Amino acid sequence: MHLVTGGAGFIGSHLVDALVSRGESVRVLDNLSSGRIEFLKHHSDRDVEVVVGDLLDLDLVSRSMDGVDVVHHLAANPDIRLGIEVTDTDLKQGTLATYNVLEGMRKSGVSKISFSSSSAVYGEANEMPTPESYGPTLPISLYGASKLASEALITAWAGTFGTRAWIHRFANIVGPRGTHGVIYDFIHKLRKDPTALEVLGDGRQEKSYMGVADTVEAMLHVIGLDHEGTALYNLGTHQTVSVTKIAKIVIEAAGLQEAGITYTGGDRGWAGDVPKTWLNVDKLYSSGFQPEMNSEEAVRWCAESLISEIGL
Amino acid sequence: MHLVTGGAGFIGSHLVDALVSRGESVRVLDNLSSGRIEFLKHHSDRDVEVVVGDLLDLDLVSRSMDGVDVVHHLAANPDIRLGIEVTDTDLKQGTLATYNVLEGMRKSGVSKISFSSSSAVYGEANEMPTPESYGPTLPISLYGASKLASEALITAWAGTFGTRAWIHRFANIVGPRGTHGVIYDFIHKLRKDPTALEVLGDGRQEKSYMGVADTVEAMLHVIGLDHEGTALYNLGTHQTVSVTKIAKIVIEAAGLQEAGITYTGGDRGWAGDVPKTWLNVDKLYSSGFQPEMNSEEAVRWCAESLISEIGL
Repeated sequence: MHLVTGGAGFIGSHLVDALVSRGESVRVLDNLSSGRIEFLKHHSDRDVEVVVGDLLDLDLVSRSMDGVDVVHHLAANPDIRLGIEVTDTDLKQGTLATYNVLEGMRKSGVSKISFSSSSAVYGEANEMPTPESYGPTLPISLYGASKLASEALITAWAGTFGTRAWIHRFANIVGPRGTHGVIYDFIHKLRKDPTALEVLGDGRQEKSYMGVADTVEAMLHVIGLDHEGTALYNLGTHQTVSVTKIAKIVIEAAGLQEAGITYTGGDRGWAGDVPKTWLNVDKLYSSGFQPEMNSEEAVRWCAESLISEIGL
Repeated sequence: MHLVTGGAGFIGSHLVDALVSRGESVRVLDNLSSGRIEFLKHHSDRDVEVVVGDLLDLDLVSRSMDGVDVVHHLAANPDIRLGIEVTDTDLKQGTLATYNVLEGMRKSGVSKISFSSSSAVYGEANEMPTPESYGPTLPISLYGASKLASEALITAWAGTFGTRAWIHRFANIVGPRGTHGVIYDFIHKLRKDPTALEVLGDGRQEKSYMGVADTVEAMLHVIGLDHEGTALYNLGTHQTVSVTKIAKIVIEAAGLQEAGITYTGGDRGWAGDVPKTWLNVDKLYSSGFQPEMNSEEAVRWCAESLISEIGL
């Protein structure tokens, strides 16, 4: 039995699809804060059991471990951008939630965890592309801090209680069912005003993107590899795409070629935004994994999928 | 005004001494869980204001920021060894306490923090001596996890709210007023039985040590350096000392040369113990800092000081 926290969310629901297609049974634990039941509605109750509840409820988390072999911990606050006055969202939904998952595992004797971390742990790295061995990791967002804190809790559990762990540091993951992020925002802006698209920052921010279908395949590929100790992999593609390029792709996919692009200016979209993220993914690819899409193809696929989901 | 959290504790009280000797005014915030008022009793109320309270009380933390220029955040659970059933001590006393300090600073407009981190963030590093740029940092103790989580919160505050930060990754710090650690433990064991000394593990664990007087001088030296962004420094000495060597030094300092050393065996003292810690301190020393004592001298000084404090 696989437990997928955040299994009704964007990446989680795609992981559930991949697990069910492999004949695995799945339990989803999700508080539906950003996940949606309809992302799972094509599955039978026999294949996918859904528990609606919050990871901050340790009793519920512990009970949800019954019969579980491996926990895929994806639940988190999905939006990296910061609220102005609320600074404990990532602390609670990230760090404390991960603690509860680990404590629930320990109490229930579950020993394997696969964790969705983020390139945000690298902060503004001065080595590009950035390998897993890069240090020091000095995240500049509260989201990145909660991901690094969660990684640390997991490796402490591995070192102290013998937990077996896989940590995936994600590039920007895009695709159908996306509930946040730059492509999602652009589509909503064009819905409001099809003649103009405002870009946060100067548009020159560039990041690695990976399609969500490739991402969940990569996660399952990594879990299947033999390794000693905690496995740590960057998950992404070899290329980056700039925000201006994304704006153009979304405008084109929307058939709104007349829309003008304006910029708020500055080298980043918001406080805590990392202007450039470029992951070194040699470790993943040299282990035999091959993605279906590069960064730009993933962005285009996501734009087309979300436009058809959201409507324009 | 300097606020020293954990200022009644082992390292904190030495930092208070160093600040007062420089003519600075100091406020101490300490819950006295391991700190002791008598460590500060040689200071006048005019030089050192003491607030007894817990960092988990955010209102108290915020109120304690009044008039503060820089926060020296040293408060933490001081004992790296794990309770068998209680796994949230470091999460609360480390990670959540640091969050409250940062949030109290943000609410009160205090912008500078100097933080006591630990070599425990490196886990079982495969590069010796280990530089600040080592990665990935995979701590194996819950204590190390809380230190890495606290670092990440601090750098996120720096990236998001403009907080200026100095992070000190400590070697094993030893000296008078020590309240825990291997030398302290050995003395208490010899007090119970002056004929035999049991060592946890095989005695071959080796770590970098630094005298507490040198440590607080190094902290203040680092804070005085010009730097861009968050400053991160390993604080220690160039050498390591083995646990067996420490046992011999303590036995000699105690005048108990007949005491036999026995070993519980295994390569580490407890789950989460890192068998070898050796910090690369080139960055600190090339910045102009010189310590008074090397690792072995610091261990001997600590043994002699604690024997005179504790009695044998």
